[in-house]
Amino acid sequence: MKQKTINITEKFDLFSDLWSPKVVAEMNNYQFKIAKVKGEFVWHSHDDTDETFIIIEGKLTIEFRDSKVELKKGEMFIVPKGKEHKPIANSECQIMLIEPKGVVNTGNTVGERTAENNIWI
Amino acid sequence: MKQKTINITEKFDLFSDLWSPKVVAEMNNYQFKIAKVKGEFVWHSHDDTDETFIIIEGKLTIEFRDSKVELKKGEMFIVPKGKEHKPIANSECQIMLIEPKGVVNTGNTVGERTAENNIWI
Repeated sequence: MKQKTINITEKFDLFSDLWSPKVVAEMNNYQFKIAKVKGEFVWHSHDDTDETFIIIEGKLTIEFRDSKVELKKGEMFIVPKGKEHKPIANSECQIMLIEPKGVVNTGNTVGERTAENNIWI
Repeated sequence: MKQKTINITEKFDLFSDLWSPKVVAEMNNYQFKIAKVKGEFVWHSHDDTDETFIIIEGKLTIEFRDSKVELKKGEMFIVPKGKEHKPIANSECQIMLIEPKGVVNTGNTVGERTAENNIWI
């Protein structure tokens, strides 16, 4: 069988670059990606899809123009389609993202923080 | 904002029935469901979709007709569309399932183990 067991924590040992999501699994046309993040990301939105964040280790703040949420290990949050958001991590944080294949990390804000897409690990 | 932070572990404190998935979040037309499982489930398949298992606590075996996988806390596995499978847990195990809204727990094997669908917690 092609499918393999994925140990999420062990996958994080395989890379160190920040803000650069790596795909670990695919379900239908959706991908599970993991990323290490630290510092402030850029304001952006994903106009065609919701985006799921699951915190694997550490703490993450997601700022919105009118509010923010603070997430810690074991918590998840779904950013609604089209909602501008900016993730911030004071210390290094490990996250899992779930979203349709092809979604770019910086959404509608393409720039120097835009990571190469569909990199598997 | 409608969306709420979901603490996955705390959600498991809210119910005790086995093999009865509860929805905790929705992303586009997909749902995140959690379930407590123990013992053997029924052989079934989901003919229209892959199904993602993430182990939150404990251990789960997923048997296939030709093989099996053994999963523990922090591991995930995606059962391919149409693949017959039977989950088994020797001790109580907490799992998260991710799949399109409307997917029935017993797939093509409707019977006494078929749980009511779309129950939120």
